[in-house]
Amino acid sequence: MPARDIVQSVVDEVSPPAHPRDPVVEHMDRLTKPQGSLGALEELAVQLATIYGDPPGPFVYPTVFVLAADHGVAVRGVSAYPAEVTAQMCANFSAGGAAINALARNAGAEVVVVDMGVAADLAGLAGIEHRKVRGGTDDLAEGPAMGVEEAWRAIASGIEVFRSRGGHADLVAVGEMGIGNTTAASAITASVTERDASLLVGPGTGLDEAGLARKREVVVEAVRRTRTLSDPVEILAAVGGFEIAGMVGVILGAAAANRAVVIDGFISTAAALLAVQMCPDCRRFLVASHRSPEPGHAIALDHLDLRPLLDLGLRLGEGSGAALAIPIVSAAAAILREMATFASAGVSKIDAAVP
Amino acid sequence: MPARDIVQSVVDEVSPPAHPRDPVVEHMDRLTKPQGSLGALEELAVQLATIYGDPPGPFVYPTVFVLAADHGVAVRGVSAYPAEVTAQMCANFSAGGAAINALARNAGAEVVVVDMGVAADLAGLAGIEHRKVRGGTDDLAEGPAMGVEEAWRAIASGIEVFRSRGGHADLVAVGEMGIGNTTAASAITASVTERDASLLVGPGTGLDEAGLARKREVVVEAVRRTRTLSDPVEILAAVGGFEIAGMVGVILGAAAANRAVVIDGFISTAAALLAVQMCPDCRRFLVASHRSPEPGHAIALDHLDLRPLLDLGLRLGEGSGAALAIPIVSAAAAILREMATFASAGVSKIDAAVP
Repeated sequence: MPARDIVQSVVDEVSPPAHPRDPVVEHMDRLTKPQGSLGALEELAVQLATIYGDPPGPFVYPTVFVLAADHGVAVRGVSAYPAEVTAQMCANFSAGGAAINALARNAGAEVVVVDMGVAADLAGLAGIEHRKVRGGTDDLAEGPAMGVEEAWRAIASGIEVFRSRGGHADLVAVGEMGIGNTTAASAITASVTERDASLLVGPGTGLDEAGLARKREVVVEAVRRTRTLSDPVEILAAVGGFEIAGMVGVILGAAAANRAVVIDGFISTAAALLAVQMCPDCRRFLVASHRSPEPGHAIALDHLDLRPLLDLGLRLGEGSGAALAIPIVSAAAAILREMATFASAGVSKIDAAVP
Repeated sequence: MPARDIVQSVVDEVSPPAHPRDPVVEHMDRLTKPQGSLGALEELAVQLATIYGDPPGPFVYPTVFVLAADHGVAVRGVSAYPAEVTAQMCANFSAGGAAINALARNAGAEVVVVDMGVAADLAGLAGIEHRKVRGGTDDLAEGPAMGVEEAWRAIASGIEVFRSRGGHADLVAVGEMGIGNTTAASAITASVTERDASLLVGPGTGLDEAGLARKREVVVEAVRRTRTLSDPVEILAAVGGFEIAGMVGVILGAAAANRAVVIDGFISTAAALLAVQMCPDCRRFLVASHRSPEPGHAIALDHLDLRPLLDLGLRLGEGSGAALAIPIVSAAAAILREMATFASAGVSKIDAAVP
C-alpha cells in the first residue's frame, strides 16, 4: 500500500470519544475533596477517562518514543551544537546515559529510540529502531527539506514503529533528537498558526545572538515559501524533518490505538500541530507535559488549546519533559481509580466549588 | 526534658552543608546536555547533592507526614466546610480513600497521619499516630489559640513523630488537614513576612464572598495582636494551630536528620516560615512542591526564596502537592546519579550555556 494510503487509513481509525465526559465529571465531584481543588489534575483525569474509560489506568507500560534525524539546515549555524551530536547522542541513548534514559527509568517507562534520518550509520547501536528515510534532510534554506513522498513515508514509518514497539504501551510519550530541529519546528509553528515567524524564533539549546539572527532569517524566508501551502504534509516536506514526521506518525498511530500521548517540548508540539491538522480528532489524546522557554512553544500550545503540566524551564528535548510528566499523568488516573466518595467515606459534602 | 529544650537541642543539631556546592555544579555541567537545559531540575539536583552528597538518592522510602488538628476559629464560618470534616477526613486517610493516599501510593511513598489536636476521639482509627495536644485550639479571634507551653509541646511532638516514624525515611514530605487552618496560616504569613494581611487572605478551599470578608477581618485583627511579637513560637501560639506546630517539628526533625523536606501548599509553607525563623539553617533542606492559587502562598514562597516545582492550581492540602512532586525530586537526583558525561559518552561538548 502506498505510504499515503497507510497514513490515511490510520487517520480514519482515530475516533471521537467512546466514553462520555459528563458521568466522569460527576464521579470526580463525588470524590472526597472540594470540587476543583485538585486543579489541572482533575481535567487531566477526566480526559484520561474519556479515552480509557472510568477509571483509567494504572499505566503499566508507559513508553517514550525518541525519534532522531539530522537537518541539512544545520550547516548554516542555526544551532549551538555541530550536527554530529545527533549521532553521538543516539549512541548515548543506546548506552543508557542520556537524560531521557535516567528520567524514563525514574518514571518506570521504556525508551524506544528510532533513527528516522541520522547522518551516520547507526547499525551497530543496540536497541535502536532503524527506519532511516535518508541521512538527513536537505537544507530548507535552499529548497524543500524533503520530497512530499518522503514525508508520507516518514509518517508511515512512525506509525509502523508505534505498532511494532508500542503494542503493549498503555501510555505513550514522544520526544526527539536532531541538531537544527528548532529551526524546522519554528517554521512549522509559524506556518500552521499563521503567527509572525520572527517573533517565535528562540535560542533553542543555547544559540548566541549572531546565530539567532541567522536562524530568524532562515525561518522567515522558509515561511514565506510555505505561506502558499495549506496541506500539513506539504509544509512538513518543505521544512523537515524526518524525526518530526516520525512523531506525527507515532501520534496518529497511538491515537488510532486509543492511547493518550504525552508530548514533550517545542519540536514535538510542532509535530502535534501537524498531526491535529491532518486529523482533528487526535487532539483529544494529547497531554502537554511542559512549557519550554522557547517563545514558539507557548504559541503552539495555545493554538492546540493545551495547558502544560510543568513549567520548569526545560529546553533539552529527548522527551525529557514528557518523561517527567508521566508520574503526574499516572497520579491523575489514580484519583479516579482509588479515591473514596463522600458517601462511601462518610464525609460531609458541601457543594461549594473552588473559585 | 522540657519541650522547649527538646526543640532547642534539635535546632542546634541542624548543620550547614557538609557537601560543598561547587563540585556538584561542575559535575552537572559535565553531563551530556547543554548547560542549564534541564532548568529548575538542575538546581534541585544540586540542592539534593549538598544535602545527601553527590550523587543523591535513590529515594527508597519517601514518607508523607499529614498532621491534623482543629481550629477554634472555625466556628466563625471562615471555611466552606464544617469542623467535623477534619475528623471525617482522618478516618478517610486511615481507610486509604483520600487524595493523599492515592497520590502517595502513586509516588511510592508512605503516609503517616498524626492527630495533633482533632476535636474528636480518633483512638479507634488504625495507623494514626496519636499526639493530641488538645482537641482543637481556642478561637484566635478571641485570644491566643494556645498557650506558649502548648506550642512548644506540639513542636516537640512533631519532632518525636518524625523520629519514631521517619527514621527510615530518606525523603520527607509534609501536609496537613484542619478545617479553618488557612486563617491561621494567613495570620502567620502576614506576621512573619510583615505583608498586608488583608491582601493575602484568600478563599481557601471554596469560601464565598461573605465568608471571605469575615475571614479577612479575623486575620487582620489577629495580626494586629501579633505585630508586637517577634518570637515565632509566640506567633504560633497566638494564632495556632497544633498541626502547624507539628509540621514545624517534622521540618526541624528532618533537617536535623539531614533529609530534604518537600513542603506542600500554603499551610505547610506557613510552618516552614516559622521553622526557618527558629532555625535559619533548615531553609536549605526545603523543596517547594507547588504554588497554590491562595494569594498568601506566593508571598510565603517568595519570603523563603523558594521556587515551586508545580503550578497546577492545587488547593487541597493533605500533602497532595508534595506527593505529586516526589517523582520530580527523584528525577532530579537521577540526573546526577545516572547520566553520562561528555567525556564518558564521547559527545562533542560546547560550553555555550542556555540563556
